[in-house]
Amino acid sequence: MTVDDLADRVRAGDLHALARAISVVENEGPRAAALIAALHPHTGRSTIIGLTGPPGAGKSTLADRLAGEWRARGRRVGIIAVDPTSPFTGGALLGDRVRMQQHAGDEGVFIRSMATRGHLGGLARATGDVALVLDAAGFDIVLIETVGVGQDEVEVVRTADMAIVVVVPGTGDDVQALKAGIMEIADIYVVNKADREGADRAAASIEALLALQPMAGEGWRPPILRTEATGGVGITALVEAIDRFCARGPEQVDARRRLRAGARVKDLLSRRLLVHVEQSVLAPGEFETLLDRIERRETDPHDVAASLAARVIERD
Amino acid sequence: MTVDDLADRVRAGDLHALARAISVVENEGPRAAALIAALHPHTGRSTIIGLTGPPGAGKSTLADRLAGEWRARGRRVGIIAVDPTSPFTGGALLGDRVRMQQHAGDEGVFIRSMATRGHLGGLARATGDVALVLDAAGFDIVLIETVGVGQDEVEVVRTADMAIVVVVPGTGDDVQALKAGIMEIADIYVVNKADREGADRAAASIEALLALQPMAGEGWRPPILRTEATGGVGITALVEAIDRFCARGPEQVDARRRLRAGARVKDLLSRRLLVHVEQSVLAPGEFETLLDRIERRETDPHDVAASLAARVIERD
Repeated sequence: MTVDDLADRVRAGDLHALARAISVVENEGPRAAALIAALHPHTGRSTIIGLTGPPGAGKSTLADRLAGEWRARGRRVGIIAVDPTSPFTGGALLGDRVRMQQHAGDEGVFIRSMATRGHLGGLARATGDVALVLDAAGFDIVLIETVGVGQDEVEVVRTADMAIVVVVPGTGDDVQALKAGIMEIADIYVVNKADREGADRAAASIEALLALQPMAGEGWRPPILRTEATGGVGITALVEAIDRFCARGPEQVDARRRLRAGARVKDLLSRRLLVHVEQSVLAPGEFETLLDRIERRETDPHDVAASLAARVIERD
Repeated sequence: MTVDDLADRVRAGDLHALARAISVVENEGPRAAALIAALHPHTGRSTIIGLTGPPGAGKSTLADRLAGEWRARGRRVGIIAVDPTSPFTGGALLGDRVRMQQHAGDEGVFIRSMATRGHLGGLARATGDVALVLDAAGFDIVLIETVGVGQDEVEVVRTADMAIVVVVPGTGDDVQALKAGIMEIADIYVVNKADREGADRAAASIEALLALQPMAGEGWRPPILRTEATGGVGITALVEAIDRFCARGPEQVDARRRLRAGARVKDLLSRRLLVHVEQSVLAPGEFETLLDRIERRETDPHDVAASLAARVIERD
C-alpha cells in the first residue's frame, strides 16, 4: 500500500490501517516522514491530553473511566499507553489485549501501548507522532497515559495540549512525585483513591507547592480534584474541569502547539544532520579512530565535536 | 582566574576551585568546553558508579554508608546527588548542606547535588562532565546517586562505569521499578531494608527477571545483595562485590567508556550544529515564520527539518 493510500484509509476510519500507520510512525523511517507529511494537513482537531503520576496511582483505571465518560458524551477516544516495560518481556502487547477487552466492539475507543525504546527523546517524539495519526483518524480526544513520573514522562506529557497529574494519598511518594519536574506541567491535579486516609494531606501538600509556584502567564490556576476511579467517583467533575481548561480560548492551545512544533523541528533536524555526518563527513572507520584517540586521552569529546561541526559548516 | 589556572587548582585538590569548576561545567558554556579539554588528559582513573532505584529505597543512606566504608579503606569519594527538585524550591542546595554535615571536616568526601534542568539529555551530559571534574580532582570513586528510576536516571547511570540498582521489599513498586529499562543496566542489585517482610520475594522477583534476560557478552551475572543501610548491615559485602566487578579486567570498562564517549560526541555535535542553524542558516524571524506555516498546516515539522538540513549540507 502506498503511503497516500494508507493516509486515506486512516482518515476514513479503517482501524486496521490505523494500527498499521502507527507501526509505520513508530519505526521512524522515511516512510514515517512521508506518512506524517500526508496526514499533517488533516490534524489539529483532537484535544491531546497527557495523564501522568507515580506507578500505582491508578492511571490506567482513571483512563478507562474517562474514556467511558467521553463515550457517553459521544466523543471518540484514542488512548496511548506509554509503558516502560523492557522489550524482552513483551508486556506492552499483553497489556493492550487485556485492556482492549473492556472496550471490545466499541470502535469509538482505540487503545495502543507503546514500549519505551531506551532512546532518550525518541519516546516523546514517537508518542507525538502516534498522537498525530490518531488526530488525523478523527478521534476527538487523544489521551497519552504514562507509567511513572520521570523526566521522560514529563517530556511525553509536554507533547500534549494539557497535562493531568495523578497522585494517591499515603504512599509517601506523593510529594516526591510532585517534585520531579511535574509542577511545571500540571494543568489539573487529581488525588485518586481519595477515600484513603491522607487524601486531605495530599491535597494540602499540592496546594502548598502551588502557592510557592509563580502563576503562569496563562492565568489558569490548576484545580485539585478528587476521584475514586475504581468506583467511578469524581469522573464527571474531572471531565468538566478538562472542558473548562479547553474552553479558555484557542490562543493558549496554539502557543503550546507552537512550542512543541519548534522542539520537534530541532529534534528532527539534529537527527538528519547526524546521519549526514555519519554517511558523508566521516571516512569509513574514522569515528572509531577518533574514539581511540579520546580513549588514549589525546583529545576529548568537545574537541572532536568542534572539529566535526567545522567540517559540516565550512564551505570550501 | 583562567581556565588553565582553575584546572591546575582542581588537580591540586583545592576544594573551592573544585566547587567553582563544577559550576562552570554545569553552565555548559564555551568556558565549560575549555575546562573539560584542560582536565580531560588527567582523567580516567576514578571508578564511576551509578546508584539508582525508586524514591524511598534508601539510596542516600546507602551512599553515605558506602562513602564511610570506602573512607575506612583510604579511598577518596565524590558523590553527585542528582535531585529532580524543581528549581524554585531550592531543594538541591539544602540537601547538600544537610548531608555535608555528616562528613564535615573530611576532605576525602565531596558531595554535590545537581538539580534537573528540564532539558532532556542535558542532565546526563552535565552529570558526566561533573564526574569528569571529580575524576581529575583525584577522587578514587565517583558515586552518582539518582532520585527515581525514569529514563533520565537510566541515561545518567549509563554515564557510569557500573550501575547499582536498589529496591525495597513490599512497596509493590519493586517489580514496576525493575521494568523501567533498569534491567539492561544493572551490574549489582541491592535489596535494601532487607529486614522488612517481603525481602525474599523481592530478591526472587529480581532472580526471575534475570533468568528471562539473555546473559550479556561480558559474562558478569549481576549478584543480588541485601543491605540494611540505616544499621550499616551488608555494606562491606556490597563494597566487595563492587571491587569484584571492577577487577574483571580493564577491557570491559574501556568498552563502556568508549560507547559513552561516542554518545557524548554525537550529543555535543548536535548542539553545535543547531546553534549554527540558528545563528547562520536561518534569517532573523525565519524560524517563527516556519512555525506559522506549520500552525496553518501548510507544512509539517519533517518537511521543515528536511529543508533546513539541506541548506546546511548543500554547498553551492
